[in-house]
Amino acid sequence: MHAYRTHNCAALRKENVGDTIRLSGWVHRKRDHGGVLFVDLRDHHGLTQIVADEDSPALEILDRLRVESVVTIDGEVKARSEGTINANLPTGEIEVYARAITVQSAAAELPMPVAGEQEYPEDIRLKYRFLDLRRETMHRNIMLRSQVIASLRKKMVEQGFTEFQTPILTASSPEGARDFLVPSRLQAGKFYALPQAPQMFKQMMMVAGFDRYFQIAPCFRDEDLRADRSLEFYQLDFEMSFVTQEDVFQALEPVLAGTFAEFSGGKTVTPAGEFPRIPYREAMLKYGSDKPDLRNPLIITDVTNHFEKSGFGLFEKIVGSGGVVRVIPAPNTADKSRKFFDDMNNWARGEGFAGLGYVTRKGGEFGGPIAKNHGADKMAALYEELGLGDDDGLFFAAGKESEAAKLAGAARTRVGQELDLIEQGCFKFCWIVDFPMFEYDEELKKIDFSHNPFSMPQGEMDALENQDPLDILAWQYDIVCNGYELSSGAIRNHRPDIMYKAFEIAGYGKEDVDANFSGMIEAFKLGAPPHGGSAPGIDRIVMLLADEPNIREVIAFPMNQRGEDLMMGAPSVVSPKQLRELHLRVVEPPKATQAEKTRTDQIGE
Amino acid sequence: MHAYRTHNCAALRKENVGDTIRLSGWVHRKRDHGGVLFVDLRDHHGLTQIVADEDSPALEILDRLRVESVVTIDGEVKARSEGTINANLPTGEIEVYARAITVQSAAAELPMPVAGEQEYPEDIRLKYRFLDLRRETMHRNIMLRSQVIASLRKKMVEQGFTEFQTPILTASSPEGARDFLVPSRLQAGKFYALPQAPQMFKQMMMVAGFDRYFQIAPCFRDEDLRADRSLEFYQLDFEMSFVTQEDVFQALEPVLAGTFAEFSGGKTVTPAGEFPRIPYREAMLKYGSDKPDLRNPLIITDVTNHFEKSGFGLFEKIVGSGGVVRVIPAPNTADKSRKFFDDMNNWARGEGFAGLGYVTRKGGEFGGPIAKNHGADKMAALYEELGLGDDDGLFFAAGKESEAAKLAGAARTRVGQELDLIEQGCFKFCWIVDFPMFEYDEELKKIDFSHNPFSMPQGEMDALENQDPLDILAWQYDIVCNGYELSSGAIRNHRPDIMYKAFEIAGYGKEDVDANFSGMIEAFKLGAPPHGGSAPGIDRIVMLLADEPNIREVIAFPMNQRGEDLMMGAPSVVSPKQLRELHLRVVEPPKATQAEKTRTDQIGE
Repeated sequence: MHAYRTHNCAALRKENVGDTIRLSGWVHRKRDHGGVLFVDLRDHHGLTQIVADEDSPALEILDRLRVESVVTIDGEVKARSEGTINANLPTGEIEVYARAITVQSAAAELPMPVAGEQEYPEDIRLKYRFLDLRRETMHRNIMLRSQVIASLRKKMVEQGFTEFQTPILTASSPEGARDFLVPSRLQAGKFYALPQAPQMFKQMMMVAGFDRYFQIAPCFRDEDLRADRSLEFYQLDFEMSFVTQEDVFQALEPVLAGTFAEFSGGKTVTPAGEFPRIPYREAMLKYGSDKPDLRNPLIITDVTNHFEKSGFGLFEKIVGSGGVVRVIPAPNTADKSRKFFDDMNNWARGEGFAGLGYVTRKGGEFGGPIAKNHGADKMAALYEELGLGDDDGLFFAAGKESEAAKLAGAARTRVGQELDLIEQGCFKFCWIVDFPMFEYDEELKKIDFSHNPFSMPQGEMDALENQDPLDILAWQYDIVCNGYELSSGAIRNHRPDIMYKAFEIAGYGKEDVDANFSGMIEAFKLGAPPHGGSAPGIDRIVMLLADEPNIREVIAFPMNQRGEDLMMGAPSVVSPKQLRELHLRVVEPPKATQAEKTRTDQIGE
Repeated sequence: MHAYRTHNCAALRKENVGDTIRLSGWVHRKRDHGGVLFVDLRDHHGLTQIVADEDSPALEILDRLRVESVVTIDGEVKARSEGTINANLPTGEIEVYARAITVQSAAAELPMPVAGEQEYPEDIRLKYRFLDLRRETMHRNIMLRSQVIASLRKKMVEQGFTEFQTPILTASSPEGARDFLVPSRLQAGKFYALPQAPQMFKQMMMVAGFDRYFQIAPCFRDEDLRADRSLEFYQLDFEMSFVTQEDVFQALEPVLAGTFAEFSGGKTVTPAGEFPRIPYREAMLKYGSDKPDLRNPLIITDVTNHFEKSGFGLFEKIVGSGGVVRVIPAPNTADKSRKFFDDMNNWARGEGFAGLGYVTRKGGEFGGPIAKNHGADKMAALYEELGLGDDDGLFFAAGKESEAAKLAGAARTRVGQELDLIEQGCFKFCWIVDFPMFEYDEELKKIDFSHNPFSMPQGEMDALENQDPLDILAWQYDIVCNGYELSSGAIRNHRPDIMYKAFEIAGYGKEDVDANFSGMIEAFKLGAPPHGGSAPGIDRIVMLLADEPNIREVIAFPMNQRGEDLMMGAPSVVSPKQLRELHLRVVEPPKATQAEKTRTDQIGE
């Protein structure tokens, strides 16, 4: 017989009745039924009920042991009596009569309970993560994460990708977020950096001719922490050569749709090949966001033309000075009180907007100042155009276009939530495409890149030379699910001549480009294929599938929000010898209040 | 038609003759046959011959382009004439007549050639790694690496393991090699460390109840670099709960044997289930090494008892003072000159040993001083016992046991190589088991741990309490292939009581254990399963399979031996702002000669 187990704790069935078996696991729960002890024995796989009756040598030992002790039980499988069968448990038809017991590890008093999953302060949970991970939800989340990653890998391989590893000790980059630095011992005064993403490396893999790269890539950003942000995180980093934007979509859609379908727990998923492609400008108009939640059926409409001449002077004035008026329907709100509408307006003001206008309607009768001033006939015409009915309300976001779009987008979300219109039980994907290449920087009074300077402009050199820069679109795209951006991506600009020209339009000379991006430019001068890719966030994908709002619930050993690993005691003070070897001295900030702390970056020079 | 390709460069066959197709790739080679240009177009998949004749608009452009430029060719597939078919090329039966060409990327003059793979200085290869990786051997090595890792993953999953990710930003540990440190911005004066291995985390995964963990784990050690050592490297890290040592072997053997068989290129591989288990002491005796190369058929024998009384006074003296005499056969060396044997002796002296004695034999006639002094009859008896023949020589390693074993091991390897006895075309695995738990430290005159203090002693508490410490064996093992140790491993000591006792025997108090290993001890007090594992080195596995002696040949973007990434320019100087944010100041070592540099660790306090 095996030293520890003949079966795992989820394996025994009715067919095993009469078998002599051995199980090992944790004492999950104990119930004393007067001289007979019932123990739920737990392992990775599941639970089995152990019975220690008065004749069992295990009785006294189990009685004495604390829960979460680890034991090996030799016993006999018996059928449970009719009334005690547990249909919710795979092993619920049997129980094991303990004939002998070996204590593998006697547990001391627990700092937090495992069974029952009662809420516990996060710092305790993280300090004793090895206990926290024994809890059913955490165990399930971490297993889900592993399964999701395995599924993503499998599907990427099916799409012809190969996984490659890129360096974790690499160079600090002037771009992007703040790098984590790693002092070099061999090169005094110099530092490696941990990659914010393997962007440069994956493009170099393309230049090296590897065609379809992917990696479940660890990435690092030294940014302040939030519920959905971790110092280290993973992305499904990929890149492809000789592809158009459409090829990238066709490669990724089966991966995402397939993996989501596999782990959605019955929720519907946008099928591969049917992810809508929504141009950026359309998204900003219809959803007031470049990461629209398509589960929300509400669509924003621009009604500016209705208010060029209106009895509602405020809107007429806004429109007259170049502003816009956007509306968000509030269907079937005839029974909503005035307070509902006023609360929405107050919410908008609380968010820093000028206010959210509204029209109420009940049995065809309009209410509210906008309707009153604009006139019922003209309002009815507007309703007709919008396809709205006799009991539908309408919210108004008016102002400068960018502000109005933003307010309309936020209002769309809020109205959808308040009216319980967000479709549940589904994952709705879309691509946002056609991002503008350039934008006008109001502050600096100049044209600059909108998003990513390294994306290929649509129309390439011809567009850069012959179009108004503000009309040029980029081969750049975001993949969005249920209102969350999983990733940006782009067809890259692999042509030094087009890159110099694009930077010139944004006001940067050839020497700026050469100074800052020489590595990439030099590589592109030695034979580079057209290429593009993206990098969906894995933690976010698992959060969506596990329905967890906090990233720390889907990472086995996360740091707390102060960047500390409480279990391992990281970060920690290191020895003077370690610092000497690294040619470093710590410059202690003075003990200071939080407010003063912002000034400590003055110190140390 | 797709913008870039209808086929890849390895796809076209005789069946495609007459098709109009589009290919994209790199101009690998050009051959000018007087007005007709032949171009090998290369992509990730392979090569296709392009023909640009006088009528083709591609002729002039291809003629002008440098090799390694990227082009898209529209053309017609034609059969090659009988005499020009290339049987070594999958596309060797066809060629493509270019009808149109698009230049995707015109290459400038190359700093190193791609086609032909001529040797080039490593610094150039690493600086232009994106070119170097286009070379056939590097491309194949990196693809092999990816395939090996994918295969290891698949086989681990088949063995019931789940892959989990553990933190890369973690705590510095006083044990082991030198850590890479990562300064914390949020916690002034404190540092994260990159993991030397996820040892603590994988054990915590077991304590958390996850049963079978694995990870293709990046590991980091700030050690001086060698041909087979990189600052960052990968291991197949795994751990299992409720297992004996034999269970670990049975889980890993199919993974290693399976993966090696898949990529061995026809070499034989020790089958799973047949990896020999060699006790440490037997390995030291028979192979003079705890990482024996079993491809070498030579076996060392202890012949001390033959020399207790011998005419060869030196050996008699050595044996008399507690030393040993070990012999390495040199079969069929009758035709070897005296110089062969003397050279071996000189080699041994060059390695720092006292010398390697020998006996020659030719047609049954012994030669050399040992035979002469020991006597031909006694020597013949020894030969009889060893099963040696009339034309076999014999080398002698005598001295203190540990020294003699080491010399015998080195001589066994050298004799095997010199006589060309090392079996080629095979991967021979073995486990080294039964390592001693403790050893006597001659310098400190005390008992200390031999290898890993955290391994479970065989016999557990009973052994610690009742056996001579130097007789206690550990559940510790190495996996060895062709003389390379791929990894150590162990059944861990999961019992605080046994751990305290083991440390006590090595002279450490409970307070030392608690001070240094509190995290692990505290976790083990809250219910820990028996567990064990190992972590075979992935870079080493790929090196063996690719038959490459240098680790940098199996890593896509390695650093050079000075720890620099020449392509990315890492490590580099960072901005004063970055250092201020990290509360650090660089303490520049004075410009110094290499000899003086060793003193720079005095500076900075």
